[in-house]
Amino acid sequence: MTQDFPQNDRNRIRRGHLRAKYDVSTVCAILDSHFLCHVGFEIDGQPHAIPTCHWREGNRLYWHGSSKSQMITHLAAGNPACVTVTQLDGLVLARSAFSTSVNYRSVMCYGTPSLVTDEAEFDRQMKLFFEQIVPGRWDQLRPMTAQERKATGLLVMEIDDAAAKVRAAPPGDGAEADFPVWAGVIPIATVQRDAVVAPEGARAALNHPTLERFSWQNDGNR
Amino acid sequence: MTQDFPQNDRNRIRRGHLRAKYDVSTVCAILDSHFLCHVGFEIDGQPHAIPTCHWREGNRLYWHGSSKSQMITHLAAGNPACVTVTQLDGLVLARSAFSTSVNYRSVMCYGTPSLVTDEAEFDRQMKLFFEQIVPGRWDQLRPMTAQERKATGLLVMEIDDAAAKVRAAPPGDGAEADFPVWAGVIPIATVQRDAVVAPEGARAALNHPTLERFSWQNDGNR
Repeated sequence: MTQDFPQNDRNRIRRGHLRAKYDVSTVCAILDSHFLCHVGFEIDGQPHAIPTCHWREGNRLYWHGSSKSQMITHLAAGNPACVTVTQLDGLVLARSAFSTSVNYRSVMCYGTPSLVTDEAEFDRQMKLFFEQIVPGRWDQLRPMTAQERKATGLLVMEIDDAAAKVRAAPPGDGAEADFPVWAGVIPIATVQRDAVVAPEGARAALNHPTLERFSWQNDGNR
Repeated sequence: MTQDFPQNDRNRIRRGHLRAKYDVSTVCAILDSHFLCHVGFEIDGQPHAIPTCHWREGNRLYWHGSSKSQMITHLAAGNPACVTVTQLDGLVLARSAFSTSVNYRSVMCYGTPSLVTDEAEFDRQMKLFFEQIVPGRWDQLRPMTAQERKATGLLVMEIDDAAAKVRAAPPGDGAEADFPVWAGVIPIATVQRDAVVAPEGARAALNHPTLERFSWQNDGNR
């Protein structure tokens, strides 16, 4: 069964609606494709968009920061947020400026975050974060101290509604194909390179030198 | 002479202030390092963070969209925005969860956009956009029609203030180097691949198969 997020005034895609997708599987696939997101919020009439790292469990998003940071304290107070994840996949060079575009996958998630205050749930989520990026690493780490927990503000946001937008196609102006200019796509991708050990060395090997979760290519040291 | 953007309540970095930079050259270097940004704005109490493409001239940012889009009409009406550009450079794996981090370059720019209504300035900016991405292409393109101009909303935002944040370092927990877990950095990068011609072909070659402006590596078809 394909489930859709509800459509309403804040998440309905008005322009380019043919690229819009509201189904849970598309939304979650984009959320899971990267750990970088941008959190939109507003303080005293001023919007902010801050990059941070997120993870997901079911239809809940999680991110953390300094417990005293403006973003964490403001959002923990019951204010709404927009969490956006964007993957840029290519520059689409058409024969006209108007048809020039980009290939991308993006998702905007709306909700009202709150603070995770239960210590067991805090630990479970922190472990989940690490498991999603470098499986097995959490149990190898020097355990968190009480002071570190206190200094960390962990937010959870149930996704009330969301909208994904996807373009994955060649230029849309094939009807102008006789115009004498090159047309096509310059693909753009995120890659990881070979891991670089800390200058002071390390007492053990890296378990997962490739971040398999994100389906990135490891292009090595080029 | 190094110039700094003014610091005030909305742009001052409170947490991790050692990573904060307010000088114009750092801010502009990050803005120019990518054409993908996220625009933060707020409508009826709901924040939004929308990905789009930006360019810069001096201390003004530009981006465009459908002239009837919610983002364009809302911001053209004199509402404030935050434009954020983020480059993720690596996953910093430390010996503890608390010291785990990412290497990145990000910048948040604040201001109040307005619509570019002068036709000559509209054309000059659209050309500048293309010149910054694929030099020489604007003059090769099928010229914009009056209808296409009308359908395009072009915003300009003078950067009133801005804050950059940069982390480019190995794990900061060398003091715990004896802890038996791997520590170091997994570099992450944006790359472009070989250009893919449109399925219907093209009547001319691509002048600049590499997007030199962004210092991306061309990793070819891997």
